[in-house]
Order: sequence, then structure tokens, then C-alpha cells
Amino acid sequence: MKKILILGAGLSTSSLIKYLLDNSQEHDWKITLADYNEDLAKRKIAKHPNGKAIRFDIHNEEQRYAEVAAADIVISMLPASMHHLVAKACLQFKKNMVTASYVSAEVKNMNAEVEKAGLTFLNEIGVDPGIDHMSAMLIIDRIKEGGGQLTDFHSYTGGLVAPKYDNNPWNYKFTWNPRNVVLAGQGTAQFIRNGQYKYIPYHKLFSRIQRANVLSYGEFEVYPNRDSLKYRSTYGLDNIPTMFRGTMRRPGFARAWNVFVQLGATDDTYTLENSEHMTYRDFVNTFLRYERSVSVETKLAKYLGINEDSEIMYKLRWLGIFKRDKIGLKNATPAQILQNLLEKKWLLDEGDKDMIVMQHRFKYNINNAAREIISSLVVEGTDTVHTAMSKTVGIPVGIATKLILNGIINTKGVVIPTKRDIYLPVLTELEDYEIKFIEEKIEYREVE
Amino acid sequence: MKKILILGAGLSTSSLIKYLLDNSQEHDWKITLADYNEDLAKRKIAKHPNGKAIRFDIHNEEQRYAEVAAADIVISMLPASMHHLVAKACLQFKKNMVTASYVSAEVKNMNAEVEKAGLTFLNEIGVDPGIDHMSAMLIIDRIKEGGGQLTDFHSYTGGLVAPKYDNNPWNYKFTWNPRNVVLAGQGTAQFIRNGQYKYIPYHKLFSRIQRANVLSYGEFEVYPNRDSLKYRSTYGLDNIPTMFRGTMRRPGFARAWNVFVQLGATDDTYTLENSEHMTYRDFVNTFLRYERSVSVETKLAKYLGINEDSEIMYKLRWLGIFKRDKIGLKNATPAQILQNLLEKKWLLDEGDKDMIVMQHRFKYNINNAAREIISSLVVEGTDTVHTAMSKTVGIPVGIATKLILNGIINTKGVVIPTKRDIYLPVLTELEDYEIKFIEEKIEYREVE
Repeated sequence: MKKILILGAGLSTSSLIKYLLDNSQEHDWKITLADYNEDLAKRKIAKHPNGKAIRFDIHNEEQRYAEVAAADIVISMLPASMHHLVAKACLQFKKNMVTASYVSAEVKNMNAEVEKAGLTFLNEIGVDPGIDHMSAMLIIDRIKEGGGQLTDFHSYTGGLVAPKYDNNPWNYKFTWNPRNVVLAGQGTAQFIRNGQYKYIPYHKLFSRIQRANVLSYGEFEVYPNRDSLKYRSTYGLDNIPTMFRGTMRRPGFARAWNVFVQLGATDDTYTLENSEHMTYRDFVNTFLRYERSVSVETKLAKYLGINEDSEIMYKLRWLGIFKRDKIGLKNATPAQILQNLLEKKWLLDEGDKDMIVMQHRFKYNINNAAREIISSLVVEGTDTVHTAMSKTVGIPVGIATKLILNGIINTKGVVIPTKRDIYLPVLTELEDYEIKFIEEKIEYREVE
Repeated sequence: MKKILILGAGLSTSSLIKYLLDNSQEHDWKITLADYNEDLAKRKIAKHPNGKAIRFDIHNEEQRYAEVAAADIVISMLPASMHHLVAKACLQFKKNMVTASYVSAEVKNMNAEVEKAGLTFLNEIGVDPGIDHMSAMLIIDRIKEGGGQLTDFHSYTGGLVAPKYDNNPWNYKFTWNPRNVVLAGQGTAQFIRNGQYKYIPYHKLFSRIQRANVLSYGEFEVYPNRDSLKYRSTYGLDNIPTMFRGTMRRPGFARAWNVFVQLGATDDTYTLENSEHMTYRDFVNTFLRYERSVSVETKLAKYLGINEDSEIMYKLRWLGIFKRDKIGLKNATPAQILQNLLEKKWLLDEGDKDMIVMQHRFKYNINNAAREIISSLVVEGTDTVHTAMSKTVGIPVGIATKLILNGIINTKGVVIPTKRDIYLPVLTELEDYEIKFIEEKIEYREVE
């Protein structure tokens, strides 16, 4: 019998828990789901005979050590900032660990000790990061081994609403942490194009979009992520001339979202005086020039050089940002006020399903010919519990946990799934859950 | 005999030292000028019989305590971040202190102790902050005492090149810390207009300018400072409907500078890969789209919606930003690269003189009538040592030091010069040095 400890029972863990419970009989697993909210953990275990729910406080050192000591493997689904506490306990009691989060510097620094202890701390094995790494490396390794030389790698991911439920003018609903969506892109986007480094400041990000078509799902637009340059070394592509990662939205989103960026309405660094008594209309007006007897709508359109009859203005009106409704938030930042409004309008309706879209484009030279591979994934949610987000985060974590317990994954140290011994078995089993990339090999096209 | 200790012999201290040495005979002062660079201090003292130069290291606690203990008053012209070390020593040895810098939270928190010890720590007694506070409060107090009610206060300051030497297309040369000029305005400008709070993000700052005419010096443009709101309480104007502070440049500066802001070329938060081997032309191109066979100039003009034949492009070409000259700076931020270029082009020529311009505009109601006062100051540099900046920072510091030594200023605690017992004698003596505001009382005009 093997004991699996899952820390955190939040939104994205439902499919992970289901995967582990469903496989528990066959593999003789006992699963402990630990959360600060014991009721939440209990509901997710639903009295499964191989499951147990406990109240858990990560900051209670005694409990943390006791639970880790009692487990054979630990899955941390806690906020990323807490993983190092888990990692330290795992190192002390010599337990393997799995997370879906980016490796923090603190955990990365434990690599030598983890390796020496003969342990595997596998991170970034969710969707983004996770499935993106694995599906990219599968093709990168194959191209390299076939003697091809990669010249161009583009990779896009988006969390969206499934087409059937995509019924608002933004073609967007919150399927993930709203705060992260509001703050997305802040900083400077960095990538490389034909050997030229490109840097885009936040205030230009949403006017520097690209287009992508995905299978039968039609057109998407892509804005650049902050961090494309660092993926060159992650993927072993240090000298690739073009490397670009981006986030997908439906066409028209970026131009309208850019209004908030231009106004300064996504700023989270200061609070507005008097925000509690402001209306949404006042909120917009606070970023515009003072002008007597000119409407907020007219000032906004003029300030940003958009047409008052445009699609953009329609999207803004639909959100209610020109309404005289009270905001009612004390000492709020612009970003908090915007998030508060959007949460009312971009809410998934009862029965709505989400969708994860991912696409990689690889260009490479081989035998003096230029080739291109496009690899695409679309996963729709099964229901409001087993969302696309929950499935694509949780199932790879579950599979990887099984593969570590069964000794199939046995790379030691603090690792991410860029090596074949990890990505191949995980990707193979993911296909059983309809998480499957479709490859198109196309003639090399010269594109802008 | 009184002993005055001056810490720091940097650029802006020349006129302070001259003031104190010139007055030393009459008042029986001995002046010690302490700087890490002893030669610099020696040159500034120039063997004056009442002066002494010493090598001084602020981080040498023993020396710091010994020098403070031996003085009757301490003037700190060190970087603002070091004042708290001086303040602590002054408190311990019960010495009065004068600085031209903003009061830090750390020094402010010493107020009760300073008051209890019967000491005066006078800060913000340079030009901005300093002369701006004093000249504003003189008129604010007069209006209030006459029964007037202030409705609108605008205040602008600029450090520029004197008209006779104003011979480049930007009408600007560095007369102060170039780094601060490159980074100026980052954050969010906050002010209030007719009771409406206004917030301007950095990327919109240089397109939200106002105009000002100053005496016979012609037209200036003004971009908003970050911090207008907090001056309401500083000046006792908590309920004023309009409060705006700004920075002055010559017309046309802001539109051209905005090009760098829009590109992201003033960003100081990340370093550019390969900056050492880049040319200035590459630097500009790194912020622009990748497009084959389109010139950097054309891409820039198109991206920012400016005309390729415009005055803006002329200013940019004049700086040499399209040239293929190597930058030669390793691991540089965009802001560092831009500063490096500007330092070559915006350098004061031999014999050039600088200029400080300040203007306050007060609107108020009295006896059911609306009135307006405009109060303006222009100070030109005497020579390259006694610049306008050095005079307007140093002379008020010198005067205040004398007034404290002579017991004329005797407010206790950590103070700034917003009270009459300080500002009145200082402003009065400043007129002897041709630092004199000119008042215009004009009919109330309705302005946009």
C-alpha cells in the first residue's frame, strides 16, 4: 500500500483527486486530501473508501512534518509561494514531491540535496507550465534527432470559454484567477525574432498582437508573454533565432482590453482616493481630462483615438463602465475596481464549459529543405467541476505521481518535464483522457 | 564663535559654501566642509581663513559622532538616504540640523524626540522642495488672512538652460542629475481638478501637458508631477478643489520625449541582452516590430503615428538615435543607454548658464469676487560654479542656518519651511541675491 498526500483542495484539484481515487484500487493507494477548509476536502473525497480528508494548516510545522512523514509521496497544490515549506519537509523525511507550479529559486537551490537524497521533486507538470513543456519537447527532440535544425518556435496558450457558451461581446469569461487576468502582461515582454531581440512595454503589448488558427476552432489573437527568452535554455534551443510565447484570446479582445491599459485602469500599485463613493463612470472619468459638458464616452473615444460607434465602445458599454452604479470598494486600486466589475460580467453561467487551447509552431531546416510543424491541442471542460483547466492541470499531475510511485519516472533532483523519460509516458497516458495534440506538417510558408 | 559642519561638497553646495564663508567674519563662524573626496572639499574652501576641509566617511560611525559633537549646527548635503544617520547623531549630541531634501519617514518619526530635546531639524529648504514651499505659503497665508478662499492652486518648476545658451532643438540641457531626468514621471501622476481626482499613468504623462507663460521668458509646457494630492495637507489646503504641481520644459519637449516613453526606452527595470554590441539604431529597433526592408525611421514614425518629416523626428535624428554607433555599455537597462546618449548631447557647453523657473497660480474668491495671483521666479546661473541650481538650493540653506544660529528661527521639531517664522526672513534675504518673485494680480479669467 502507498500513501499519497495531496496538500490543497482548491479549484484546479478536482480532476487530480478523481484520477487518483479512480486508480487507487488497482494500485493500492491511500489518498489523504489536506486543506485548511476541511469541508471542502471532505466534499472532494466524497467518502471514497481509499480517500481521507483532513484539516491542514501549512504554517503548523508540527502537522506539516507529521503528515509528510506519514506519506510515500506529496503533491503540493498550494499557492506557489508555499511549496518551499513542503519541499523542506519532503527533503527531511525523504519523500518525493510533485507540483504544477513554476520552480521557485528557493526550491531550485535544493537540487543538489534532493539529488543526493535520491529524491524526485517534479514541478511544472500542470498545463502551462506542464503540458506546454512536454508537447514542445516531444517535437523538438524528434526534429533534433532526425537531424533537423530549429529556426523558429512559437507557442501559444489560452484559457477561454468553450465555443458553445461563448456568448458575450468579449468572447471571454473568467475560467481562471481573475486577478491574474487583470494584471496579465505587466512588465516588459521579451522575445527574439530572426536574431533580433524585441522588447515590448506593457502599454504597447495589446497593440502588438499576432494571429493564429487552431484546427476547426477558427481564429485567435495572441499577445506576447513576458518571458520567451528564458525558454531558449529550458528547451535546449539557446541559439534559435526566433522564440516567441504568447497568450491566446478571441479576435477583438486585445484592442478593447487595451483601453483599460491605456487609461491606467489595470494599475495595482496605488489606491484611488474616495473609491468607495465613486461610480464606474467616475472611475473612467478619473483617467480622462477635465472638460466641462463633454460626456465621458466622448472624452474616452477622443483620448484613445477610437470611434464612438466602434466595436470597442460596444464592448465597454456592455461591461457597464459608463454606468452610474456605485463601486462600493474602500481604498481600492484601479485593478481591484476593474476586477470587481469584470467578475460580474465575465462570470461563467451555470452549465458553461471552459476550454484550453494550445498551439506550437516549429520551423526547421533539414536536408536543405525548410519544414514546418504545427501541433495543436484543444480541451473542453467536461462539466463545471471537471473543467478543462482542472483536467489539464490535474491529470498530468496524477499521471506523474503514479509514474514516480511505480518507478517509471526516476530522474533525481528538482526537475521539470522536459526530458523524455517523463514527458513520453505522461503524454501517452494523457491521450486516454482526450488530452491529445493534433499535428499538421505543412509546407514552409514565409510569414510576416 | 559658532562651528558649522557641512556634510557633502557636491555640485549644489558651491553657493551654500560661498554664502557661509562670505558671512563668516561678521558672525564669527568656523566652517568645516566634510566630504569623502577631501580634494573636492579643499578646492571649495580655497584656503578661506574661516574654512576647513576634511575627508569624511558617513559610514564611519566614530568620525560621524566626533564631527557632529564638535559642531554647533550640522548641514547635511549628502544623498537623502543618508540624512537619518546624521539626524540620529544630531539628536544624540543635541545639535540643530538643516537639509535641502524631502523629509524621510525615518526622520519624520524622530519629531517628538527632536521637539523634546529643544532642537530644530529644518528640511526641504532648497529650491524644490524649499523655495516652492516658502513662496507658495507667503501668498496662501496672505489670501487666507485677507478673508479669501482658495479654489485653485497650480505650481510649476523647471530646471532649464538660460535663454542665451538655449541652442539645441530640444531647448533642453542637463542642469541637474541626468538619471533623474530620464526617469522623471515614472509612476502615476495624481492631482485634483474642480473636485475631480485625476490619475495619469506614465505612458500618457507627456501627452497631457499644460501651457504657462512666465514674465518676459515666453512660453513653457508643463507635465504633471506625481504628488500633487499630498501637497493639499502640506499647504493647509485640504479642501481645495484644484491642486496641480508640474515640471516645466520648453514647448515641443514633451511630444518628442514621449517617443522614448512610448518605445519603453526609459525603462530601468531590466537589462537588454547584448547591449554592449548594439548600436543606437539597434536600440531603437529592439522596441519596434520586426519587418524586413523597412527602415527603423519609417517603422518608428508609423508605430507612433508621427510624421516622418516632423519636428519630433528632427529632434530624434539630432540626438543620433538612428546612428550605427556602438553603445558599448554592458548589461545596460534601456534608461541607462538613453542617459548615456543624452549626456553627450544635452551637455552644458563651456560657459553655458542654467536657469530655474518657478510659477505659482492662485485663484481665490473674496467678497463675492474671483481673483487670481500669478507669482513667478526666474533665476539664471552666475557662472558654471554658481549655477541657478546651486544658488537656489544653497543660499536658502545658508540663510536658514544663519537664522537658526542667531535664534531668529526657533520652531522646534522636524520641520519644513511652511510657517511664517521661517519663510518670511528667508524670502526677504533671498531678494538680496536676486532670488525674487514677481507678482501679477490679474482679473479672474475662465481657463480650460
